[in-house]
Amino acid sequence: MSPLFVVKIGGNVLDHPEALDTFLKDFSSIPQPKILIHGGGKIATRLGDKLGIEAKYVNGRRITDDNTIDLVTMVYGGLVNKQVVAALQAKGCNAIGLTGADANVIPALKRPVTTIDYGWVGDIEEDSVNAATLSALLNVGLVPVMAPLTHDGKGHILNTNADTIASALAVGLSSFYQVRLIYCFEKKGVLENINDETSVIPLINQDNHKRLLSEGKLADGIIPKIDNAFAAIRSGVKEVLIGDAKDLIRNVSGSVSGTLIVS
Amino acid sequence: MSPLFVVKIGGNVLDHPEALDTFLKDFSSIPQPKILIHGGGKIATRLGDKLGIEAKYVNGRRITDDNTIDLVTMVYGGLVNKQVVAALQAKGCNAIGLTGADANVIPALKRPVTTIDYGWVGDIEEDSVNAATLSALLNVGLVPVMAPLTHDGKGHILNTNADTIASALAVGLSSFYQVRLIYCFEKKGVLENINDETSVIPLINQDNHKRLLSEGKLADGIIPKIDNAFAAIRSGVKEVLIGDAKDLIRNVSGSVSGTLIVS
Repeated sequence: MSPLFVVKIGGNVLDHPEALDTFLKDFSSIPQPKILIHGGGKIATRLGDKLGIEAKYVNGRRITDDNTIDLVTMVYGGLVNKQVVAALQAKGCNAIGLTGADANVIPALKRPVTTIDYGWVGDIEEDSVNAATLSALLNVGLVPVMAPLTHDGKGHILNTNADTIASALAVGLSSFYQVRLIYCFEKKGVLENINDETSVIPLINQDNHKRLLSEGKLADGIIPKIDNAFAAIRSGVKEVLIGDAKDLIRNVSGSVSGTLIVS
Repeated sequence: MSPLFVVKIGGNVLDHPEALDTFLKDFSSIPQPKILIHGGGKIATRLGDKLGIEAKYVNGRRITDDNTIDLVTMVYGGLVNKQVVAALQAKGCNAIGLTGADANVIPALKRPVTTIDYGWVGDIEEDSVNAATLSALLNVGLVPVMAPLTHDGKGHILNTNADTIASALAVGLSSFYQVRLIYCFEKKGVLENINDETSVIPLINQDNHKRLLSEGKLADGIIPKIDNAFAAIRSGVKEVLIGDAKDLIRNVSGSVSGTLIVS
């Protein structure tokens, strides 16, 4: 199988035009087939404030009510996605912006209401990514750029975590490609000491993962990323790397800088 | 060559959920390959007002300044486009939402500044539509849904009239398909008397067009639509029809209701 890079870029880079430009230049230069998944950035919150859309949280998690799903559809699916696509096109990368509704690439299930109603949030069920359609787009030389949105197949757009989308796409496409999933963020990798950028853990496997967890060495924010990574590897993804957006070129060319996650 | 329907739907239908739902159901039922182009609707203006983005006009034409291009990228490329795509998916139509930047389907030229600076407005040059890419999408069974946005190839999204996009796509695709271009709006067709819905002109050709113009029988709003139609026909489009969104089914199945424009 031929290689495919599935690269996720977080909100922090999206919020900094210069960092984003450098990242997109690096991403464009990857010669292999590739997919980009972007998060939201702070612009949705800023715009929501201006429009008087109140951000509601339950247990620290944002509720996606009617106004909020319209807001993120506009900002993630429209503004951010199209600005990234136009920027990539300017760098000679034939990007095509997609949500999970487009070409039905990611049908999802509206999260069932239990004690909490998360609103228009989509959970991706196993084996539901339309990898064949994505593969058809890749085969005509296109570079899918995914916004963190899915749909319920009943006419509603759903808000879905970008890390989860990256992982689901990587898994789905591993039937067609040898997939490397790269999570780019603002740190050098998974740190043993969150205040020390030189404390990057070069490799995480099942064994040291348990130890790191029990020793409380993993920061709250990174735990779900690592869980997503293990889930992806169990389902056929070749390797997962968590690293600095600035190190993308190094990481796609084999000399790992960051944290490699293996089974 | 096989047939292709290029259908443009205006803002008036977009602003009415029930009319839009009926229209999308009818559009979904077209068995032949098809493309939908949508306009903007009033939501961009409403949202712009809420955000304090002032609508600036010169000679009755809106200027697309920095804030306005962000606004229409969000609303046309995000909210409207994705809602239409999700609704079509729910009706079993494998829609894929695009702007002209996506897959570089419509590169355009930022309108040169003369006495007026229109801002981020894109004019489509002859033969610049990437019909081969659109054809590749159609060949894998996808139904492109186009927002009225193009790009300059330098990283900027541009605002472009939806009628113009429909006409440019129809012309570009006429090398691959026998294209019928249908402009759907809220009237029964081109009217000889704008206050009389029964005064539909069934056929316009070069000859009666001149007469209608000289007699002042064509309403201001319809004149550029007819010009676009003639331009399309001169460049290879088989026929252009201007009619009521409610009559789409009739118009795609051959029993014309509305105004047919021929050379």
